[in-house]
This record gives sequence, C-alpha cells and structure tokens, in this order.
Amino acid sequence: MTTSRPNKTPEDWWSTSIIDMKPGMIRVRGYAIEDLIGNVGFAEMVYLMTRGELPHPAAAKLLEAALVSAVDHGPQAPSIATARMAVTCGVGINNAMASAINMLGDVHGGAGEQCVSLYNAIAERLGGAAATDSRRMVEAVTLEINALAQQGIRHVPGFGHRFHPIDPRAPRLLELVDGAAKAGVVGGRYAAIGRAIEAQIAERAGRVIPMNIDGATGVIFAELGFAPPLCRGLFVLSRSVGALAHAFEEMQSGERNKGPIPRHLTWSYTGPPAREVPGKLE
Amino acid sequence: MTTSRPNKTPEDWWSTSIIDMKPGMIRVRGYAIEDLIGNVGFAEMVYLMTRGELPHPAAAKLLEAALVSAVDHGPQAPSIATARMAVTCGVGINNAMASAINMLGDVHGGAGEQCVSLYNAIAERLGGAAATDSRRMVEAVTLEINALAQQGIRHVPGFGHRFHPIDPRAPRLLELVDGAAKAGVVGGRYAAIGRAIEAQIAERAGRVIPMNIDGATGVIFAELGFAPPLCRGLFVLSRSVGALAHAFEEMQSGERNKGPIPRHLTWSYTGPPAREVPGKLE
Amino acid sequence: MTTSRPNKTPEDWWSTSIIDMKPGMIRVRGYAIEDLIGNVGFAEMVYLMTRGELPHPAAAKLLEAALVSAVDHGPQAPSIATARMAVTCGVGINNAMASAINMLGDVHGGAGEQCVSLYNAIAERLGGAAATDSRRMVEAVTLEINALAQQGIRHVPGFGHRFHPIDPRAPRLLELVDGAAKAGVVGGRYAAIGRAIEAQIAERAGRVIPMNIDGATGVIFAELGFAPPLCRGLFVLSRSVGALAHAFEEMQSGERNKGPIPRHLTWSYTGPPAREVPGKLE
Amino acid sequence: MTTSRPNKTPEDWWSTSIIDMKPGMIRVRGYAIEDLIGNVGFAEMVYLMTRGELPHPAAAKLLEAALVSAVDHGPQAPSIATARMAVTCGVGINNAMASAINMLGDVHGGAGEQCVSLYNAIAERLGGAAATDSRRMVEAVTLEINALAQQGIRHVPGFGHRFHPIDPRAPRLLELVDGAAKAGVVGGRYAAIGRAIEAQIAERAGRVIPMNIDGATGVIFAELGFAPPLCRGLFVLSRSVGALAHAFEEMQSGERNKGPIPRHLTWSYTGPPAREVPGKLE
Repeated sequence: MTTSRPNKTPEDWWSTSIIDMKPGMIRVRGYAIEDLIGNVGFAEMVYLMTRGELPHPAAAKLLEAALVSAVDHGPQAPSIATARMAVTCGVGINNAMASAINMLGDVHGGAGEQCVSLYNAIAERLGGAAATDSRRMVEAVTLEINALAQQGIRHVPGFGHRFHPIDPRAPRLLELVDGAAKAGVVGGRYAAIGRAIEAQIAERAGRVIPMNIDGATGVIFAELGFAPPLCRGLFVLSRSVGALAHAFEEMQSGERNKGPIPRHLTWSYTGPPAREVPGKLE
Repeated sequence: MTTSRPNKTPEDWWSTSIIDMKPGMIRVRGYAIEDLIGNVGFAEMVYLMTRGELPHPAAAKLLEAALVSAVDHGPQAPSIATARMAVTCGVGINNAMASAINMLGDVHGGAGEQCVSLYNAIAERLGGAAATDSRRMVEAVTLEINALAQQGIRHVPGFGHRFHPIDPRAPRLLELVDGAAKAGVVGGRYAAIGRAIEAQIAERAGRVIPMNIDGATGVIFAELGFAPPLCRGLFVLSRSVGALAHAFEEMQSGERNKGPIPRHLTWSYTGPPAREVPGKLE
Repeated sequence: MTTSRPNKTPEDWWSTSIIDMKPGMIRVRGYAIEDLIGNVGFAEMVYLMTRGELPHPAAAKLLEAALVSAVDHGPQAPSIATARMAVTCGVGINNAMASAINMLGDVHGGAGEQCVSLYNAIAERLGGAAATDSRRMVEAVTLEINALAQQGIRHVPGFGHRFHPIDPRAPRLLELVDGAAKAGVVGGRYAAIGRAIEAQIAERAGRVIPMNIDGATGVIFAELGFAPPLCRGLFVLSRSVGALAHAFEEMQSGERNKGPIPRHLTWSYTGPPAREVPGKLE
Repeated sequence: MTTSRPNKTPEDWWSTSIIDMKPGMIRVRGYAIEDLIGNVGFAEMVYLMTRGELPHPAAAKLLEAALVSAVDHGPQAPSIATARMAVTCGVGINNAMASAINMLGDVHGGAGEQCVSLYNAIAERLGGAAATDSRRMVEAVTLEINALAQQGIRHVPGFGHRFHPIDPRAPRLLELVDGAAKAGVVGGRYAAIGRAIEAQIAERAGRVIPMNIDGATGVIFAELGFAPPLCRGLFVLSRSVGALAHAFEEMQSGERNKGPIPRHLTWSYTGPPAREVPGKLE
C-alpha cells in the first residue's frame, strides 16, 4: 500500500489516499460516506479503510470472525485490567481505552503480527510448491522455526497458551477458514502452513502445543493478505471492545482509585535496609 | 448495568458479569466464545459485550451504521493527525492508535455523549407525552436548550459543523433510523427529539444549523438505549479504524519524526525579548 | 498566564511565549538555553517554563521538595502498577511512562489540584483579613467545606489517607513551608489555611484526619502561586520518576505479559449462566 | 540493577527494591522519605530512584544539566504539538502530558538511548586502552560506525540536526562534562568517544556534522553509567516539562478542537476518484 506522492505544495503537508473531503463531501477511498453507511458492514469498512478496496462479502465474514474472537480475555489480561483501573482513577472512558490498548505491545498483543510474519516467511520459502507438498512444507517450516530459535525465540508465536490447554477460539476460527477455502473464497495455503507448524512443534516437543487465538486469527489475516503491522492493529480494534465494556462496567461499580491488587496483599521488598540520609539537616 | 457484588473473597479482587473463564473455556455473557465466532457480527458483539444481551438483528444494523459513519475525518482531525505523527516517531501501531484515541476528550469526540444526555433529558421532560405532541415537545426542548445556555454552553451539541454546511453523514443516518422506526425496530422518539431541536435552533438562530454526525449517531445510540459514557466509547471504536488506517499508511511513507506542520512554517513567539540569566557563570 | 495573540498570519498556527527558536538559537522565556544549562536547577527550569520567570532560589527549593515528595507510592498505586505491567507487555519505556501518567486523573492524582482550588477559595473569602484572624478563618473554612459537601464531596481533598494514619511526607513538607515563611520567602497564608482546615475536620469528625501529601504539596503550590491545573502537572512530573524507576526495574526482571494479579487468583463472575447462542449454525 | 527474587508467597505478586511501605512509613531505597524531602534535590532523587544510591553532588549537577537541556523544542516537535492539541480536545492535563510522551519513540526521543548504546559499544572495543590512544579510538569508532551502516543506519545518532547547523545545547553540555572530568567527578572517557565520533563523521562526510542534544546528553548519561533504556526515560522526564508548560499555555488560550494545521490548508488526496458503492440500496 504505497502512497503516491505527487509534488506537494507546502500547504499539502499531509498526503493520503484514504479520505477526500470538501465542505459537504466525504469520500472514503472514492466512495461517498453516505453511500457506505447502511450498505457496508463494520468489517467491510475496516477492510476498505486499511486495504483500499471493498472485500468479497465472504472474506468480510472471515475478518469479522477474527475481530469478534479477540475482544476479551478477562480482568487478568493487562489490557483489560488497565481499562478497569483507569476509570476508578477518574479519567474519561476514551483515556481508559487508550491506556488499555497502549499495553498491546510485542508481548501482549504482538503474537498475531509475529505469526503472520512467520506464515509469510514460510509461504515465501514454499514459493510455487503446492501446500500439499509435504516435503517442501516440512522443509519450509523447519527452516523458519530454526530461524526463530536462532533469534532466541523459544516459543513459536501462535501456539500454546499459558491458561488454556486448548484455546477454545482457535478450532472454530480454523473451521471457518476451511469452509471459506472449500468455497474458494480464500486459498487455504496459510491454514495448511499453520497446521504444518503445529505438527512440527508436536514432533519437536513430544506433545501437542495447539494453535491459539493469535495463530488462528493470524491464519485469517494472512489468507486475507493483511500486512503484519495491520494485524496488530486489527487485534487492537478487537480488544478495544473488551476495554470499553470492562471500563464501563467498572465505572458503574463506584470504586475509586482501585489498584491492581487488594490492599491487604503486600509486595515483596528486596532493597536496602533502613538507612540514614547522609548530611541531612536535623 | 449494575454489577452485582456477592461477598467476595480477597482472591476475587475483580468482579465482572462480562466474561467467565476456565482453562479451555471462555464464555461471554454466558455464551461460549466458539459459538459466537462466525455466528454474530462485530456490531452484535459490541452490543453483547457492553449491554449484556444480543441485540435484535435490525438494531445491530443501526449500531453498525453508526460505527461505520464516524471512522475518519481526515488528517486535520487531532485524532487522525496524532496517529500519523506517532508512527513517524517510531512507536508501535498500537501506541499510535492509543495516542489517537487519547485525544477524544469532551471537545473532540465528546459531542455524541453530550447529545445523548440532552436527548435523554428532553425525553424525561416529555414523560409519557407522544413525540407528536408539538406543544409538549417544544416545551421540553426549550427548557433543555435554556438549561444548556445557563451552563454557558452556546452551541447545542450535535448541530452545526465547522467544516460542513451540511454534514453528509447525518441525513443518511436519520434515514436509516426512520426506516427502523417504521419497521417497529426502534421507537423513533429520539429522532423526533433530534428534529425538534434542529427546528428550534433554526428559529432561534434565524438560519438552519443542521444536525451533524454526533447528533445523528446520538439519535441511534439513544434509540438503542446506550448510556452516554458508552456513546463516547462507541465513537472511540469507530474512530480507531481511521487511526489504524492512517497510521499504517503513514508507516508506508517512510517519513521520520514528522511534526504537525511543515518546518518552513514558524510559530508566533509572544514571549519576553532576549535577556540574560542572572548570575550565570561566565 | 495569558498568551498575547497578535494578528497571526496563517503560517503562524501556533503562538507561544515559552520558546523562541531560529537555526542555532533556542531561547526559553527570553533566556538562551546554553545559559540556563548548568546555571539553573531542574525545579527552577520547571518554574521558568510554566510561570515565565525564574523563581527566587528559596522558592525553587520548596518546589523541589514538593517534586521529590510524590515520586512513588509503591506497586499498589495504579500509576506504578501500570508502568510495571506495561514493560512486561513489550512496549517502550516511554509508552510505559505514558500509560502510568495517563492514570493520574481526578481520583488518582487530582487531589493536589483540588486542594489548591479549595485553598484559593478560602483565601478569597478571607480577603484582606489576617491569617491569624481566627474568626474570619474559621468562617471561610466552614463555608468552603460546606460548599464541598453540597457538591456531594464528603472527603475534603488533601486530608486523610487510606493507607497511612499519618502520611509521613506531610509534616516534613509543612516544616519546610514554615521555615520559608519565617524567612519571608513565602507568606505562610496557605499553611495557615491548611492547618485551619485540618482543625475543623477534626472538630466535625471527632478525630484527627491529618493532612496528606496532596494537602501538603498543595500548600507549597498555593504559596508559590501555581494555578490548579499546573498543580496536577507538577504531581505528574513527580510521579513520572517513580514510573520510570519501576518500569526499568520490571524490565530487568524478564517477566512477560504480567497481569495485575497472580494467575491462580480468579475473578468473581456475576453474569448469566451458560446459555446457547440463538440460531447458531451447527 | 538486578532485582533479587526471594521465594515469594502468592500474595507477593510484585517485588521491588525501590520502595518499602508500611502504614505511616515510606522508605525509598532504604531512606525515609521525610529525610529525603528538603535534603536531596530532584536530580538526586531521580538518580536514587533509578540507580539505587544517592549520587555524588557534582554528578547530580551533571544529570540536572542534562534534564534541564531537553525540556522543549517548540510546537513543531511532535511531542509538544500533541500536548497543545490534546488540551484543546478537552482532555485533562495529565492525559495531554501522557499523549505527548507516548510520542517519544525510537525516532523522536530515541537518539539519546541509541547514542549511549553506541558509546558503550565503542568503550567496550576500547577495553583498557586510554581514551587518548588515537589509534585504538579511531579503530573502535570506525568499527562501530561501520556496524551501524551495515544495519542500514545512515545517520549516526547524536550528530547533526535538521533545524540547527550547530545545536546550541551541545557545546555547553560538553563544557560541563569537561569541567567535571577535570575535577575528577567523571572519567571523561565518553566525552572523548563523542568527540572522536564527531571527528570521524567529519572525515567521512567532508564537512562537520556536529554533536547534537542527544549526543551531548548521551555523553553525560554514559559518563554517569545510565543504561540505555534509562536514558530514554530521562529524556522523557525532561520533555515532560515542556509538555506541561505548553499544555497549560494552550489551555489558557481557550482554543477548541485545534487540529495540527490551519483549516484553510488542505491535504493532498492521492486515492481513487469518486466511485459508486456496488449494490447499494437506493
């Protein structure tokens, strides 16, 4: 998605192909906003805004499933806890949502993006080979997992979960991808890649470490051709819904200045013992 | 949406009716996540998460229209400009989105919430009177607009626009509400209130100051029963799409450390003339 | 602190009396930056930047004491917990600090600002009366505490603490103010006001509810003439130090995706029991 | 700065050596807070909180100079512009400051951290060689600049400036370092490294590209032994002062919803021409 940059005048400091506006007119990627409202769904709008074209309706449904799947993971998740704490501190709901999504860095929220990068790398190694070419697939997967290991990345992003032995969201998402591939809406190449990774991890580890939400949404995003940074943003959009819901609920509770843990729980202090400030005035 | 609080043990620091989780199980408002994925749309999920129940499909479509309508308003909007600047500063896309929505305070983004509060106040004054009871309607609208004026609020939130003589998004949104009211999906009371406000503003001002995006999405949110703080959050969800799209586009441009204005433009300095620091060491 | 606004050309979109710059030149409030560096301290720079003039050195020391006093209150504080959580989520240290201070809303961090507003209101009622005029002082304090009560504010900001029977920071800060008043550096009026409030709260409550960090820094800020919103900002500057220190320390721990509570602790679910999604496709 | 982790009970979710608290007691790195207040300056407090020990007073003065130097760079800087825009959007001053520092990513604000990493890498190559050993110094600098080039980094962080032919802050900061080295407070090794880099850049480029604010504060931070991530945080602390001052000033101006550029300036639209939404309902 390259932005063409014609010679701009100094007044044209910003340049975008997303939106055009004149008084009384708003066009998004060329479409009049009043024609989009009520005619395209939210997932289609997300696709149009980020990709530049309206998607095939069935592709939109896949994207929508991915957006629905990641909205919440409970108050233990840093993003959700932050949203709840924030409203008890008296900030606005937009600030609570902002604080929540500001948490979605490479570790808490980055796995979907990292998965798609991994899937893309494997797809590139596969080149023109069929996804059913086991030898080529195993080879491509092996090389890329090894490459991760060399970067010190021990856990393949998208697989395994600290809380769920099997992440209940992943099989359902894959089922939808399989259906879309059967209908010819997507190619199915990335679903095959994801499964091949899962198989190889199981071999190496001696036990199944199943695909998780990031691995599964990553399959959808890759099938739909979303670049990795956009995948992070799509996870953020999804998790924003949970942030909003939890922030609003906490707002209703009337709690004030709620810290992360009950006050009767302490923290472990591991610093120097009590000592005097040198030269302090008595 | 009151959170019931049974006697909690100290371990139960957080209490929520939104999500229940055990290893391998995620239920949102009682529904298994894997049953929601692929069966409910994003707007329905937003409604379920924030309100606690799945909406009528036609109500979901109205909500979806509102979410689609507010996604972008160009790089002049503080939220969008912030998203674009942020990525040129080298922060992650989630941080760019967070910075953007952190801007959506009472002035840039608060009007939808303020509208719904106004609509609710007028509806309360109307009591059981029919929306077609002009006398009661005019009276209720008059009293509330006067109340705003007494608080120093000169511009009724939801009407008029600095850029658009007619905001192209509003008539289309109202058209959808009218259709939903005709089909009995919503009551139509708040559409009537919105129009009555517009009529009275025109009388007072001597010219039409038409309903804008906030007034129109406010009608939808009020018809659907969303509390005002949630309306702010819904606007935030919508605008997050624009933040993501613009952040990603700017990321592709390769610009670095892009400030808000071209560097050849200066700012006006209105401070003291050059002076010496007293007692500085030579 | 009014910004004079001469007629600006369109190029002069921003107007400020804080800083003037040309290539090779930076002047802050008229002073060359290279003359400030190494000649004025950080508290003096804060004062110069926010107030427009360099402070008396003893006034700077009072401000510095206030800035030192509020840097940290442990990982139970939402701001500090947020900073620690954020780095485990893989965001940059600036993002962790930003998330932390985004928490400092009206409830967690707003009390200093609210105190100064209260002190100012009492001072206004006192008018020209001496701070030693008990009758006038009690009357002014009484009226303002009553005014707070009428707004539904039951706890006078700046007094009492959920954790400390006596906040160890407050007496020391007041001691410094008393010293400065004795030396004629500040008037001492606001210290008297603060003490008068504490006395009246004790009468009303039947027990001492001592001044806390916000009440004490509020006395300093009021003595130095800082407007209430600036007081919030000064607390933010102070707390940013704690956010940085804790973020960096957590960064060294190697923890990943650390939520707010141990995972073996659950939350209390108070929502609907398990139920089926209507009309889901089998 | 390793945090020792004794076996924690589940209640001790957080572990820190920074602060110890009991009701009525706050100790920072072992020192009672009431003994620090009024006896240590802000820079000393920053050092104590981040490093664990109180610094030598002269070292504190160097740190203070660095903190003073970077507070502001005008409304063209993304961080400052963001702070100003934010308050016109109706958010709190803490939110405006948070949005500002959220901008300080690897590009806008990261150079100090990157410099210190570079200086450290050169120091490591130098090993035990004297800073005056030109041959070893040139060799170490050459290797590290080449290493940067291999990573695609064309501009050595800390040198050159888009706006200032000579950054007025850098020579003054180096002068202070030289004074401290002469007094034996710091070693002077990193000042030598910085100058050697500047010399070699000049050779390669055929013109002087002088050290800038990041290169100079980087020398101070490296002389004082601050790890690179902390250097980012110190720049953030400094810039927060500018964010506060500008936010407060803009707050006084009464502007509302101020975007980044004057509204008469447009942006350049480079997207598709006007087109119809397929299948829209008429």
